[in-house]
Amino acid sequence: MDDRLNLSMLLDYYELTMANGYFEHGFTDRIAYFDMFFRRVPDNGGYAIMAGVDQLVNYLKNLRFDGDDIAFLRGKKEFSEGFLQYLENFKFTCDVWVIPEGTPIFPNEPIIKVRGPIIQAQLIETMMLLTINHQCLIATKANRICRAAAGRPVSEFGSRRAHGGHASLMGARAAYIGGCAGTSCTMADRDFGIPASGTMAHSWVQSFDTELEAFETYARLYPDRSVFLVDTYNVIRSGIPNAIKAMREQIAPRGHRPFAIRIDSGDVTYLSKVARKMLDEAGFPDCKILVSNSLDEHIIRDIIAQGAQIDIFGVGEKLITSQSEPVFGGVYKLAGVGRPDGGVEPKLKVSENTEKITTPGDKQAVRFFDKKTSKAIADVLILADEQIDESEPYLLFDPENTWKRKIISDYYIRPLLEPAFIGGECVFTPPPLREIRDYCQRQVDHLWEEVLRFENPQKYYVDLSQKLWDLKYGMLHELSKNK
Amino acid sequence: MDDRLNLSMLLDYYELTMANGYFEHGFTDRIAYFDMFFRRVPDNGGYAIMAGVDQLVNYLKNLRFDGDDIAFLRGKKEFSEGFLQYLENFKFTCDVWVIPEGTPIFPNEPIIKVRGPIIQAQLIETMMLLTINHQCLIATKANRICRAAAGRPVSEFGSRRAHGGHASLMGARAAYIGGCAGTSCTMADRDFGIPASGTMAHSWVQSFDTELEAFETYARLYPDRSVFLVDTYNVIRSGIPNAIKAMREQIAPRGHRPFAIRIDSGDVTYLSKVARKMLDEAGFPDCKILVSNSLDEHIIRDIIAQGAQIDIFGVGEKLITSQSEPVFGGVYKLAGVGRPDGGVEPKLKVSENTEKITTPGDKQAVRFFDKKTSKAIADVLILADEQIDESEPYLLFDPENTWKRKIISDYYIRPLLEPAFIGGECVFTPPPLREIRDYCQRQVDHLWEEVLRFENPQKYYVDLSQKLWDLKYGMLHELSKNK
Repeated sequence: MDDRLNLSMLLDYYELTMANGYFEHGFTDRIAYFDMFFRRVPDNGGYAIMAGVDQLVNYLKNLRFDGDDIAFLRGKKEFSEGFLQYLENFKFTCDVWVIPEGTPIFPNEPIIKVRGPIIQAQLIETMMLLTINHQCLIATKANRICRAAAGRPVSEFGSRRAHGGHASLMGARAAYIGGCAGTSCTMADRDFGIPASGTMAHSWVQSFDTELEAFETYARLYPDRSVFLVDTYNVIRSGIPNAIKAMREQIAPRGHRPFAIRIDSGDVTYLSKVARKMLDEAGFPDCKILVSNSLDEHIIRDIIAQGAQIDIFGVGEKLITSQSEPVFGGVYKLAGVGRPDGGVEPKLKVSENTEKITTPGDKQAVRFFDKKTSKAIADVLILADEQIDESEPYLLFDPENTWKRKIISDYYIRPLLEPAFIGGECVFTPPPLREIRDYCQRQVDHLWEEVLRFENPQKYYVDLSQKLWDLKYGMLHELSKNK
Repeated sequence: MDDRLNLSMLLDYYELTMANGYFEHGFTDRIAYFDMFFRRVPDNGGYAIMAGVDQLVNYLKNLRFDGDDIAFLRGKKEFSEGFLQYLENFKFTCDVWVIPEGTPIFPNEPIIKVRGPIIQAQLIETMMLLTINHQCLIATKANRICRAAAGRPVSEFGSRRAHGGHASLMGARAAYIGGCAGTSCTMADRDFGIPASGTMAHSWVQSFDTELEAFETYARLYPDRSVFLVDTYNVIRSGIPNAIKAMREQIAPRGHRPFAIRIDSGDVTYLSKVARKMLDEAGFPDCKILVSNSLDEHIIRDIIAQGAQIDIFGVGEKLITSQSEPVFGGVYKLAGVGRPDGGVEPKLKVSENTEKITTPGDKQAVRFFDKKTSKAIADVLILADEQIDESEPYLLFDPENTWKRKIISDYYIRPLLEPAFIGGECVFTPPPLREIRDYCQRQVDHLWEEVLRFENPQKYYVDLSQKLWDLKYGMLHELSKNK
């Protein structure tokens, strides 16, 4: 859907007033280094899942301002003709580095970095943030929900409660990355190959004279894939008995096994147990039970613990909006400006709130893994030109409480940020979505159980290298001296 | 943005399997009556605001399935060739009635009704729900926030935290309907004429050697509209003094008055009072103070009560995602099917949860106003062919507690549902957005203060006419007899 739209005008107006300002002030070629990062994980979780890179890349590839856009901006009477001409001839020339989709990500590490002319790097702020924030939000929530389901498939059913059509489509994509098995969204199947499924609404059942007639009609049409919605009238007294009749009379005689029933209301734990017993006794122990009723990770874990007989979960509004916390707070901050000699002059934003102080400089994020367990030990931010010799022990220390330190050996590392654009040229080949989903699963398996806990997870450390720590705290001391 | 996209494939897959089922079962011409309604107001508020109709109308006007869509569906191997051909030649022929945008709406009243061939009426379910749910959600939240600001302008600043680009654009539109004065979203200005504004990010300030240089550069470029972001380093010790210097040296000499400063962090109540004093003493009592820091209706009301000196509010993530409750739970339920004689056979969905029982039949919603005060008294659902004689007293009664009754006179009425499509032809002319916004304000003014309260508002009644009550409860009794 994104591909066919030019979203270049989807930017905060201040990006244009600043861009015009940089242009008029002679800063057109001034180089800036920006980081996108986030400060906390939604739901107080221990990790988030990176997502949305493919859409960001498409947006950057298509970045241009057409005649109508320029005419509109001219009408605002705030922009110089020189700047408008600059926009008309706009060519994206930045370097962009990204953490690949599906990777677990943590607060305060750059998940995207941009280096390039400050006008350009600033103009892409809003679209970068909203694209990545949205998909990270949903992928992270989906991963929690799928982990709660403990191996049972979870299908994303939330389109109707998404924040518009685009959020429905991209939410389905992000939910699939996070681990969902499928979606109700047909467009997500067409555009991304995410398996779409669906069966009947209550209106199907109501539009026939009887529930049985509704079920039998459906069963004749879809003998191998009918999911009977059994709660239009009464689950136990009519829904399941009528579904069993339809299975016996329309499905079994056609040489098929019934696929599933669906319960969408009531006490699904109790009802699923009764349903399981009735289906087993009817000779359909392989008929699955699908449940969908305002589910989230907590309810799913709870009803599984209570012995609910559920094979498939359908999760709607609480997933597609990440209802319990619908904001992923990614920000985009200046980390440096180019020096005339080609180097970088680091920049830092201070704040009374110490955790809001940014980390300056051109950086890379490196993940350390334990060789024996393959578990991730910590991430370390280093300066982009630093090297880590994996054959040597490495000192990890908490940047805020530097007395907390640990020397590790027997580790291996993986740099997290990978180039997506070099000099404005796209060097990124998106992996198939299915591979991203598998990769996500494997990467989450590298995290300790303690980090994966829903409540009060162990903090996963994002440390600074000694060099980067020296740079940051040196600048802070310098600033406080000047006060 | 919507206009240029064909969103016909944005539907839940079950709408297609059901449609194919209706087609194969010979129900292609069967007439269905559907209602869209919602069951509770987000944030436990007393009212919601209707929004999104214009986008729904555009979607319905453009409803068609192209060759690629058909080929994709054929590949699913679930649909008959006859049905695929039906989709290929799809022509929308339904009647659609809507409550106009900007109208206060209440639980359990039809806000949209659809009458037409059941295949068509079912296929549009998802797009109708997600379009209306999303914009009603944001318009309702915006109206709360704007009322909290008590006449001070509120600007919508949330693009970066929206659920994707489309949610940003349509969220800005809905926020404007709800009462916001402007937006940060440039595309919302280009596409909907919502005034976009914006000034500088912290990165602007940081990219200069000093804060003063950053302010002076900006002031020279935009002497009449600079909004100085004063919290990059220290609001009181550097931000405001530097802003005042820039006003004195770059703005006043050019014959302009300074426009505003902006505080984006810290204790904004305290800081705004200090800022006001400093600006007044500097001779700029007309310089406005804009504040933006995770605001919502509760915080805004609280800081105004504490005497904060704030002229303009910028509200971001808590508005654009309706963070405190990000789901508007509109549903779409079958209310009847066509009889061979052209009449309607009412349908009703029962539920153990009595408030989930639907109201059957072809209906209209009517708002009663008191002639003396012009305040809205209640809404009453009536059968579409019922007439109300305004010169006669009218009996209102609570449909669930029928002993609660009141005879009113001196009232006037307004039917709420207006035709948007007749036989598939659009008969709807969208009013200019500005008019919708003004209309919304006027309609909210018709509600009693008690209904407008943020916490524990008085319940606004949506009653049933005697005829409709008889129909609904007659059907319920009939159903319970058959058990």
